[in-house]
Amino acid sequence: MADLKENVLMEKIVSLCKRRGFIYPSSEIYGGINGFWDYGPLGAELKRNVKELWWNAMTRQRDDVVGLEATIIMSPHIWKASGHVDTFSDPMIDCKTCKGRFRADQTGEIPCPQKPSKAVSECHGEKTAPRAFNLMFQTYVGPVQDASAVAYLRPETAQAIFAQFKNVLETSRQKVPFGIAQVGKAFRNEVTPRNYTFRSREFEQMELEFFIKPDEVVEAIAGRVASAAVIGSRVCENAESGPRSDETRRQADWGWEAWHKYWVEERIKFYEGIGLPRHTLVEYWQKPEELAHYARATVDILYKFPFSKRDEKGELTGEELEGIAARSDFDLSQHERFSGKPMGVFDEELRAAWGKLPKEKQDELWRRYYENRKRYLLKTGVAGEEASKAATEDANSLAKGQYIPHVIEPSAGVDRLILALICNAYHEDQMPDEKGKLETRVVLKFHPRVAPIKVAVLPLLKNKPELVKTAQAVRDRLRPHLNVFYDDAGAIGRRYRRQDEAGTPFCVTIDFDTLGEKPELKDTVTMRYRDDGKQERLAIGELLNWLLPKIR
Amino acid sequence: MADLKENVLMEKIVSLCKRRGFIYPSSEIYGGINGFWDYGPLGAELKRNVKELWWNAMTRQRDDVVGLEATIIMSPHIWKASGHVDTFSDPMIDCKTCKGRFRADQTGEIPCPQKPSKAVSECHGEKTAPRAFNLMFQTYVGPVQDASAVAYLRPETAQAIFAQFKNVLETSRQKVPFGIAQVGKAFRNEVTPRNYTFRSREFEQMELEFFIKPDEVVEAIAGRVASAAVIGSRVCENAESGPRSDETRRQADWGWEAWHKYWVEERIKFYEGIGLPRHTLVEYWQKPEELAHYARATVDILYKFPFSKRDEKGELTGEELEGIAARSDFDLSQHERFSGKPMGVFDEELRAAWGKLPKEKQDELWRRYYENRKRYLLKTGVAGEEASKAATEDANSLAKGQYIPHVIEPSAGVDRLILALICNAYHEDQMPDEKGKLETRVVLKFHPRVAPIKVAVLPLLKNKPELVKTAQAVRDRLRPHLNVFYDDAGAIGRRYRRQDEAGTPFCVTIDFDTLGEKPELKDTVTMRYRDDGKQERLAIGELLNWLLPKIR
Repeated sequence: MADLKENVLMEKIVSLCKRRGFIYPSSEIYGGINGFWDYGPLGAELKRNVKELWWNAMTRQRDDVVGLEATIIMSPHIWKASGHVDTFSDPMIDCKTCKGRFRADQTGEIPCPQKPSKAVSECHGEKTAPRAFNLMFQTYVGPVQDASAVAYLRPETAQAIFAQFKNVLETSRQKVPFGIAQVGKAFRNEVTPRNYTFRSREFEQMELEFFIKPDEVVEAIAGRVASAAVIGSRVCENAESGPRSDETRRQADWGWEAWHKYWVEERIKFYEGIGLPRHTLVEYWQKPEELAHYARATVDILYKFPFSKRDEKGELTGEELEGIAARSDFDLSQHERFSGKPMGVFDEELRAAWGKLPKEKQDELWRRYYENRKRYLLKTGVAGEEASKAATEDANSLAKGQYIPHVIEPSAGVDRLILALICNAYHEDQMPDEKGKLETRVVLKFHPRVAPIKVAVLPLLKNKPELVKTAQAVRDRLRPHLNVFYDDAGAIGRRYRRQDEAGTPFCVTIDFDTLGEKPELKDTVTMRYRDDGKQERLAIGELLNWLLPKIR
Repeated sequence: MADLKENVLMEKIVSLCKRRGFIYPSSEIYGGINGFWDYGPLGAELKRNVKELWWNAMTRQRDDVVGLEATIIMSPHIWKASGHVDTFSDPMIDCKTCKGRFRADQTGEIPCPQKPSKAVSECHGEKTAPRAFNLMFQTYVGPVQDASAVAYLRPETAQAIFAQFKNVLETSRQKVPFGIAQVGKAFRNEVTPRNYTFRSREFEQMELEFFIKPDEVVEAIAGRVASAAVIGSRVCENAESGPRSDETRRQADWGWEAWHKYWVEERIKFYEGIGLPRHTLVEYWQKPEELAHYARATVDILYKFPFSKRDEKGELTGEELEGIAARSDFDLSQHERFSGKPMGVFDEELRAAWGKLPKEKQDELWRRYYENRKRYLLKTGVAGEEASKAATEDANSLAKGQYIPHVIEPSAGVDRLILALICNAYHEDQMPDEKGKLETRVVLKFHPRVAPIKVAVLPLLKNKPELVKTAQAVRDRLRPHLNVFYDDAGAIGRRYRRQDEAGTPFCVTIDFDTLGEKPELKDTVTMRYRDDGKQERLAIGELLNWLLPKIR
């Protein structure tokens, strides 16, 4: 925590989340379970809205992305190929005195269980050397618990997409460039879950793997590779379908840098569109020394959480909501090697274009493709001569129209996004109560698109049947189209405050004017705005058309 | 499999599911993993639609049900309380010769791995006595793998609802009767996964726990308990909110039988509403000897799958899609006992009503409640005297307006429902091809509500820019509102056939008449129906309003 103010703010947010049913500790009646959190009624709706908006933007509103829903438990070979079995681990030490197990890089921070006044590294208990502790949860599939039955809970959703790449390609009528999207649970046995729901052991991801042509293929077909600097960010057509519009003609020469930049911009627009303003986000380009060995570039989109550290200028630095990585052909190549199943695609355009290239151009592209393939093979432990031979074969296949696609991966965490939305929405202000006296109000200013409840329908009084009947009719009219909350209990001011805390952007009140007490106001209702508490009259018949554009 | 015809039918369905991207074997490139299945692009959309329709019907369209999204890994105490740790098991035997492990009740059917001509029970290998094999997947949470770190993948979603009952009650403004709904993954380490996706090891559930007043409480408040025979099935108001309409006044006297019947009817209506006709379903009331010990009544809703057994009359008997159980107060009582946290609710209406009851009525209701509580306690192993004492305390609390709610549980399997929808949709018929020659057509006649793609937009020819441009404009007009597939590759008849196999109910073709070749048809399109192949002309401007009511 950076300072007391932000510390207090997080405490208030955690308290509100529990009090209003956004987030509960998992298994709370049994003392909880460290690193696991449940979403209550409002949290579940908020999360559904966010996942639905992502799915809609990433798949249904595009021609060039399709969905996948794979299992959490998969063949363990997948995690061997991905590298998770061998390298997805933290270094741990054991203390032979207290029997505790600690992350080797945190022993200076963690108090010793036996002598809490000292850090683990300072106490005298004998320590083991650091050992790799794999972060994947392990289990056994089938009735016999032996080595052949070991399986893992997926630590990410991405690998299923690579493993099913050829199935999807063959059954979906897509051609490269195209993407496969997945939303689902993933699990990491974090040693120190922390920062509320930000780093938990069970979490949900929204991942897209967008498969693209290697730059050498783009150049062979389009004659050049576009500079990333000129790429605009607009939803685009599948470059393969139909005669090319200006947009898609432009796309034909997009290499990995252009696609990477495109997805960074698309994803930032997504966050802005659900209510995280640009100034709350940081677009962080990883430095060369920070990149994973297979990545050509990675951009992290950070959100400035209250628990983020501050930099030397006192600015919040932010925590990762999403990483957008240009992963080259690493993943498909690994699965090709480990499964023995070819992951290459055939591209008629490439085959036709290749034959028309001058010999020097062919040679140049051949050599670049060859060098990339050889670099990958050497990195993954293939011996020099064998790597040269295999890379030669790969480069030769270009002439037949074949290559292994590269991939751009925008990978987002749902739970941390939910937490960012709540932190960003949390406000306290002063608002007059029923008697005009100013009181402190807690309000969640969610964008209406993500708000769990879109509109509350409130009869002014509970004991007037005509008010209640009309309010229920309004509720029933709106409910098929949006999430409505009906509430008739308590003073109207208190009901407004409850909706403010739930983040409901609009309240509709049915009062005596609705019933015609003032004839000119008959069949109108009070529309009350969450953010500033202002009110106006709207006709019941107009309500739906007034509301729908605001929540979509 | 009942006979060759149904066997062949299932093979065709499995083949179609793979070919069109509904369902793939998980991890197929690595030889698969038994009992795990992935959903491809069409399957993922189908599944999303079904889950969304369930969520909408069960929560958003009602005042009296809220949602929950809990973790898959929870405190192991939950599974102790629920009985899963002790009793959720199959009896297994080991063969000391072949080292195989088999379900004790299936050794007569399973061939011996060493002598496949013989069943396991007939071979001479020495067998162990049957031992209980727990069906929960086990893992370890945290860095140390010892007994205190054991955790399970949830074998059902229901228990999280019970564990969070009080949190939801206290934060959601609901009062009994009300429900908590959850959709999510569950896991069972089935010894013999079978029937395609019907019985798999990782699956998804849609569960509602609907909490109701015990009959004694209903009688104390309403003066009587309604006969289940008179219960109609209509969506109802939360009985606590607002002055009661006829409907809710009727509800006030509903006991467990009425609520159970209500939910059976609601659920059957749901299945009918997404395209499973009544005659494909069986409403099976479990016989007293089949009931779980805590259940007062359970209705299974079965679907007649092609792989279902036939009865003596040759009728398909069906397999379970959903069970609707009246589970009394078993679950909340168990969690109260195991967690030490009170699960009772306070009911002001009961407190007020109790004081006005004649002494004899109080005594009668007291005794019935006492006997139910005592029966539960004795069943769960509490000694006689202690049970009497605890039951006395429980019954005494009625006078203070307190009781433990009972529950009705409609619990549905998503994957088996998806399989039922596909089986039910699968048809082969004869349809003329482009040249008028009859050919066999495969078509999935999904209800438009669940169909993965709602409408395909097809320019008649790919190489006419005006057709393509208009088709893309139509696509862009419809896309924000429903799932559209754009396809311009191949002869129009072949494109129709592809959409038939994908189950797309409507195809829109943009042809030269659309562009005004016949002036009176300008700006109209061909609307082609999947089920009978019939076509009509519709104006582009009317399309959306024509489509929306059909898919909702």
